[in-house]
Amino acid sequence: MKKESEKTPIIADNISGYGLLDSITTPADVRKLRLDQLPELCADIRQYIIDHLSVNPGHFASSMGAVDIIVALHYVYDTPSDHLFWDVGHQAYAHKILTGRKEAFANQRKKGGISGFPSPLESEYDTFTTGHASNSISAALGRAIADRNTPGRETSKTVAVIGDASISGGLAFEGLNNVANNPNNLLIILNDNEMSIDANVGGLHSYLSELSTSAGYNKWRAKLYNAFRSKGVVTEEGKGRIQRFANSVKSLVSGKQNIFEGLNIRYFGPFDGNDVIKVVKILNDIKNMQTPRLLHLHTVKGKGYKPAEENPAKWHAPGVFDPETGEKICSDSKDSPIPWQEVFGRSLVELAKKDDRVMGVTAAMPSGTSISRLLEEFPDRTFDVGISEGHAVTFSAGLATGGKRPFTAIYSTFLQRAYDNIVNDVCIQGLPVTLCIDRAGIVGEDGVTHHGLLDIAFLRCIPNIKVASPADEETLRNLMFTSLHSDGPMAIRYPRGKAVNKDWQTDMKVIEIGKGRVITEVEGAEIAVLTIGPALHDAKKALDLLSDKGIKCDLYDMIWVKPLDTSLLEKISNTHKTVITVEDGVTTGGFGTAVTEWCRDHNKDLKVVVLGAPDSWLAHGSVGELKHDCGYDSDGIAKAIMSAL
Amino acid sequence: MKKESEKTPIIADNISGYGLLDSITTPADVRKLRLDQLPELCADIRQYIIDHLSVNPGHFASSMGAVDIIVALHYVYDTPSDHLFWDVGHQAYAHKILTGRKEAFANQRKKGGISGFPSPLESEYDTFTTGHASNSISAALGRAIADRNTPGRETSKTVAVIGDASISGGLAFEGLNNVANNPNNLLIILNDNEMSIDANVGGLHSYLSELSTSAGYNKWRAKLYNAFRSKGVVTEEGKGRIQRFANSVKSLVSGKQNIFEGLNIRYFGPFDGNDVIKVVKILNDIKNMQTPRLLHLHTVKGKGYKPAEENPAKWHAPGVFDPETGEKICSDSKDSPIPWQEVFGRSLVELAKKDDRVMGVTAAMPSGTSISRLLEEFPDRTFDVGISEGHAVTFSAGLATGGKRPFTAIYSTFLQRAYDNIVNDVCIQGLPVTLCIDRAGIVGEDGVTHHGLLDIAFLRCIPNIKVASPADEETLRNLMFTSLHSDGPMAIRYPRGKAVNKDWQTDMKVIEIGKGRVITEVEGAEIAVLTIGPALHDAKKALDLLSDKGIKCDLYDMIWVKPLDTSLLEKISNTHKTVITVEDGVTTGGFGTAVTEWCRDHNKDLKVVVLGAPDSWLAHGSVGELKHDCGYDSDGIAKAIMSAL
Repeated sequence: MKKESEKTPIIADNISGYGLLDSITTPADVRKLRLDQLPELCADIRQYIIDHLSVNPGHFASSMGAVDIIVALHYVYDTPSDHLFWDVGHQAYAHKILTGRKEAFANQRKKGGISGFPSPLESEYDTFTTGHASNSISAALGRAIADRNTPGRETSKTVAVIGDASISGGLAFEGLNNVANNPNNLLIILNDNEMSIDANVGGLHSYLSELSTSAGYNKWRAKLYNAFRSKGVVTEEGKGRIQRFANSVKSLVSGKQNIFEGLNIRYFGPFDGNDVIKVVKILNDIKNMQTPRLLHLHTVKGKGYKPAEENPAKWHAPGVFDPETGEKICSDSKDSPIPWQEVFGRSLVELAKKDDRVMGVTAAMPSGTSISRLLEEFPDRTFDVGISEGHAVTFSAGLATGGKRPFTAIYSTFLQRAYDNIVNDVCIQGLPVTLCIDRAGIVGEDGVTHHGLLDIAFLRCIPNIKVASPADEETLRNLMFTSLHSDGPMAIRYPRGKAVNKDWQTDMKVIEIGKGRVITEVEGAEIAVLTIGPALHDAKKALDLLSDKGIKCDLYDMIWVKPLDTSLLEKISNTHKTVITVEDGVTTGGFGTAVTEWCRDHNKDLKVVVLGAPDSWLAHGSVGELKHDCGYDSDGIAKAIMSAL
Repeated sequence: MKKESEKTPIIADNISGYGLLDSITTPADVRKLRLDQLPELCADIRQYIIDHLSVNPGHFASSMGAVDIIVALHYVYDTPSDHLFWDVGHQAYAHKILTGRKEAFANQRKKGGISGFPSPLESEYDTFTTGHASNSISAALGRAIADRNTPGRETSKTVAVIGDASISGGLAFEGLNNVANNPNNLLIILNDNEMSIDANVGGLHSYLSELSTSAGYNKWRAKLYNAFRSKGVVTEEGKGRIQRFANSVKSLVSGKQNIFEGLNIRYFGPFDGNDVIKVVKILNDIKNMQTPRLLHLHTVKGKGYKPAEENPAKWHAPGVFDPETGEKICSDSKDSPIPWQEVFGRSLVELAKKDDRVMGVTAAMPSGTSISRLLEEFPDRTFDVGISEGHAVTFSAGLATGGKRPFTAIYSTFLQRAYDNIVNDVCIQGLPVTLCIDRAGIVGEDGVTHHGLLDIAFLRCIPNIKVASPADEETLRNLMFTSLHSDGPMAIRYPRGKAVNKDWQTDMKVIEIGKGRVITEVEGAEIAVLTIGPALHDAKKALDLLSDKGIKCDLYDMIWVKPLDTSLLEKISNTHKTVITVEDGVTTGGFGTAVTEWCRDHNKDLKVVVLGAPDSWLAHGSVGELKHDCGYDSDGIAKAIMSAL
């Protein structure tokens, strides 16, 4: 890897010089092209994506793979009058580029720029906010039925595009199960690139890949279909019948059953989704059908950029790279600490080596959570359950009833999907499941759907749970060790990004549950700053700034949101007039509120000032920018102290 | 219907006189019986259930249907060393009766008695807390894999029993999708009675019913199977192959594909699940297979009790009845108000008549939520999506993007399943979905898994949502009307049980969002009681009690948790020393905390006393008993006022 400084950055704010793309401002311009021009347009879009993402990082491989489907959709459908629903949406860059955001694309994911995901706030072509997997079928079904019941909108069309990883989520299944309940014309496009961010798992995945590998059968089916078609036998009704018959024959030949047909959804495919001309033809064939149907398209993740085609997982979100060579340009110093997730992953391996009961569970994020470390060492004790956070938690509860100690690593924002599982399957029973909540707090560029700001508030109200957040690696490791050696559920939250110390491999030990620690106490300080998690370091900086000005403050790392360290609070409340709490989460019902509730219930006449994320949605930007805007970076903390004085 | 007073209650605490059942204390006793005695035991258990439930209400029809499966399971498997995982669990009464709780059964669902659902707290035969649908496969899979990886436990067996309604939930699909990922011996029994509480819906349902109705095929398949079997061809491996071949032939004949086979799960069935001898034989056949497999059994809801067989939906939880005649014994006075859900359901019909945009959505609870009222009048605008709360909310969001105004009625405890959908699909986009949260607060006899105590806390932290709770019918209707005529998402919570006024059909009008109301203000009152929802009436009673003693208190019905009525709070805080808040929800992060946060942020020197549910799990009992225990019935409120003085 090169270092950033060794390389002149490529300026990608030039939006011309991209062939056919230069003439495209909206999808109406795409529809003016001849069919045979579309492959060229796709190539131009790919080059545009390569040039831009090489300097302004984003989701690369999936976006490259979906270009042809996106061009075909805008070519065939009358967008925005017809509606496209994306799933997750990080594959939809070509859609953004074609729908009036070509120029804005240079600022995608930056503060004030466009979002990395589709968002109705920024374009009428974006029908739905996306970011979390598996919701497109349910949402699009709602829209299709709404349109069907709206005078003047009855003939408009709705398409949901979902990936093969997303479709394994329970919500997608609930959608599929309801698709055939009511009359509607929903088209579901299954964009199958045979992977999620990491390799794909599950029965549905192996089913899909077997569907695709019986090449002989596919030829036979295509011939039959074309024969009928050329003789004019293929009416709308007939088309479905032939497909259904063919799918039954196929199930007999392959020994595999068609799940979608089982759910009363007509199935077409699989076809090559990177052949834009073919996709246009198929879409035209099935566009006007009045029944719900699924079109299964195969695409190649990273299509059109060799390094990404060869290693799509590493090119999911590659960061800055040299577009000529594919060499990644690393801005990290070798001296910087490793990420929090790595501390978690490596510590988990250490625990697993010493204790047979330790198991690891992830929902489609083995590399993202670094549970891949455990997977390498103990494949039989590591479970990647695919995109299914609810199952991940309930499955962990099942492991725990058998005496195991599952460590279940899920990003904060996705843990929202497992709320009932945490409540009912873990906490009511008090099972020793350790929820390792990664990406807690502001996540930065991924924006509003990805910030992990709610977890303290939604977990704190659940009886029987322990909730902690470490400020440093040593505490994270001790919390993991403590959870392993205590009873009942525990949630440990830590943020995205680098941890704090280079030398992090301290001995693990049991720490007292509900016990915070004094960081600094100064004679005569009237203000106490109480932090949870890595907010400690911002507070330290703020105190350093202020101590230069002679302002005295005490500082406490509370470690535990629940149970709170009430004896420490008792002491603090007796010796201070004001407490300032700092958390990387919403202030409505969060850690600061927990402190406030304690003061209220113990008649403490203490002013509590709460710093954290506001009660409004937070867009994208760098973590630093957003924390600053929310007023809980070191500047914000210093200001709060000053105004409290 | 007879009134309770007209009928002498039957005393069912007699646990003898039930034939073979008299000799059964644990499943080991069941295993001592001859195979041909099992039908008699099943009949005895059914009589026991009829006699007990006729005086002590519970879940009747599903329990009657599952008796044979339960007897067969305990006969074939070595419980509790082998593990049975129930789904929902209200069908498992026979399991409770056979596992040492025959006597305790007389007190099921009563305070201090056994739970109406399986609970590891009360028996080692109950492997997992149940109550919410669709979790059994995930939990049992965890247990099966834990056992496989535990020295000495490798050969133990795990069975998940799941109903045809529960299996349509996304969590069940996530479980199914993961079943074949890792080696395990899980047996899934699909207890298919062709309904949930109400009639069943969805592609999976129609798939299952077509599987069962092709009688000709079933005969053919059975013959083939038996032929192979009698010739000793059916080895463990061969058994699976024959089944798989047969399932493929079947898919060709019926045009239906086998979903489970598609997911790499061996499928056996359908068979008659009310034929206990046959079920025992099949279980013995497939018991020792080392691969995950699904056994599809048909049962009749209400089996063995004619009135229930004929109308299973009405006999889901029938209340007190005459066991001889099936006549239901109604304890209600005709003069009492109708239930909250009925006010909601009928008001929704009124709204729908006046406004085409209004639609209704329920997740398998049309009668429970009274959305059945809308279904009768506007079947095209009413959507029962089956057990899939996440889909219900995201589908509603989709409807809203198309200009519709969905009213989505879900029980509070089940809304936990749609948390991420509320956050991401509704609130980030600010879509006008009205969440109508039924069974909010303490629900009584259904107990710990069914109380709706968390919703205020978990909703209040979400930006962009409005959260309200009416104290009476008029306010409920006005809130619904207000939501229809305003923007963005709104949650309206109301409890289980009767509303308050007989004459409830007031004109609906828009009320001001975030505006509470003064109920009583007395000259010189130092204490203000602030209630949310029907807690108002308990507070009124408390104030009546105290006013007799000359104690003065002001009373406010805040109506809105979010936004809070800050101008009313401002006024209250200026004129009172103490505020007592009352809510039917957890005090950790709830309504009282919202008031506390406001006082904190506005430097109000006001004592806030918060009454509500504690930060611990609440078992079953009557609503009155439980509220009393939690200290927020009228007694509790009066005490809190006295001690604040």
